[in-house]
Amino acid sequence: MIVAIVGVGLIGGSAAITLKEKKVAKKVIGVDRSDANLKKAHQLGFIDESASLEEAISRADVILLTMPVDAILAVLPSILDQVSNQVVIDMGSTKAAIMRAVADHPKRGRLVAAHPMAGTEYSGPEAAVANLFKGKVMVYVDATQSDDDAFDLADAITEHLEMQAIFMNAEEHDMHTAYVSHISHITSFALALTVLEKEKSQGRIFELAGSGFESTVRLAKSSPDMWTPIVRQNRDNVLEVLHEHIKQLQQLYDVLEQEDYDTFYKLIKKSNKIRRILK
Amino acid sequence: MIVAIVGVGLIGGSAAITLKEKKVAKKVIGVDRSDANLKKAHQLGFIDESASLEEAISRADVILLTMPVDAILAVLPSILDQVSNQVVIDMGSTKAAIMRAVADHPKRGRLVAAHPMAGTEYSGPEAAVANLFKGKVMVYVDATQSDDDAFDLADAITEHLEMQAIFMNAEEHDMHTAYVSHISHITSFALALTVLEKEKSQGRIFELAGSGFESTVRLAKSSPDMWTPIVRQNRDNVLEVLHEHIKQLQQLYDVLEQEDYDTFYKLIKKSNKIRRILK
Repeated sequence: MIVAIVGVGLIGGSAAITLKEKKVAKKVIGVDRSDANLKKAHQLGFIDESASLEEAISRADVILLTMPVDAILAVLPSILDQVSNQVVIDMGSTKAAIMRAVADHPKRGRLVAAHPMAGTEYSGPEAAVANLFKGKVMVYVDATQSDDDAFDLADAITEHLEMQAIFMNAEEHDMHTAYVSHISHITSFALALTVLEKEKSQGRIFELAGSGFESTVRLAKSSPDMWTPIVRQNRDNVLEVLHEHIKQLQQLYDVLEQEDYDTFYKLIKKSNKIRRILK
Repeated sequence: MIVAIVGVGLIGGSAAITLKEKKVAKKVIGVDRSDANLKKAHQLGFIDESASLEEAISRADVILLTMPVDAILAVLPSILDQVSNQVVIDMGSTKAAIMRAVADHPKRGRLVAAHPMAGTEYSGPEAAVANLFKGKVMVYVDATQSDDDAFDLADAITEHLEMQAIFMNAEEHDMHTAYVSHISHITSFALALTVLEKEKSQGRIFELAGSGFESTVRLAKSSPDMWTPIVRQNRDNVLEVLHEHIKQLQQLYDVLEQEDYDTFYKLIKKSNKIRRILK
């Protein structure tokens, strides 16, 4: 089949690499606002040609939307306007606003909303890698709103990417991702800002940075073009979890200020329950 | 030479593995409050025998202190009381309080204060691994207070561990580690508490947890026995950095609440400067 990738970056590129490798995609057409990105994607070999959005829609069997979520929100209605039997798979990181924007669209059934829980802190075509998705979770959102054949085609792609499927509605999805993805990025941004600020007066501070620091701050390398639209579309949930997180930090602060080390110990012990979740 | 490891956990065990492998340590004597830990260390083969602290001090050429920092603070003066020409290497994660406790000790010169910037979120003898220290930084603290021969022996060990040496005074060390190590642990503890709390009402929340979440929260697996004494001894610095970090998070909260996405974008962009530091 012919696959169009709208947004030739980390997600679109990584999907294209695997779909070409497995010969699922006979041809991959790249669409991107940036000519430099298209050129790079071509050089890297994961797109066969580039085209305008309109041309790609008309020629492809399946259209993967892998651009930032503000762009998805802006163009999805007009993409559905142009679709006959093609399948459109929205792979964005937020869902509720996007689902609302096309809820009553006559071609809503051709859309499959799916969020691959996979990524790195890097972006752009050079960031695309084989096996990015392997073993990860694909979240289908409001799957009952998709036509059966459209869902089946999307699910075949999910299987080729070797992902595990789970199902949720859009509101659940956005709340859950705020708690297990968006907040992680915001704490990293804030931690980077904290330490970079201190470096101005204490130049040597990073000489001591080890793997623990790197682990908690690496997401601060993430692109503002991708993340500003995510927090914008998921503002209410992000504000809720950020409020809770600040409360937990303030509690640790207060307990330490009061030199209540028994309570500090108990709070660390309680946080250790995360071992149940993480491998 | 004969090496005594006081505290047969992640750090002591990992050092013993390498020093035995490289035949630097003819014999490793383990000292620990826990008989189960000593038995395990013996089974794992990184100690040759166990002994009381007193006996280990009298028989060893070099004594590595790799127990939690409250234990180091409590026993270091009496260890130095028992030392003649042996070398004591304090490998704890905080320094100022410990340095003050032995500042006027007649045997202060036999002590080398060194902090290996290496570790994982795991603890205990089973956590010990070969090559934990390789390529990492060893921070020597107040090195001019050590006798030349004591420092040279400690530095030979640092070279066998294939670490890179840097030098600082105790106050600098404690401030810097608050910014690039201790705060990373505290944000992970708080993030784990935030999400575990939410899980109580939203059971499915962890189904979506990916590598970004794991990265920012894995340090919350760290032992309260190790970390409560660290934050206690480094309380003032930890309070300072925690205050700054909460301020940065509150700023992101306020900007998002005001829907000022231009500023949010700029703050992410500014945090991206961490790319300069991280590989």
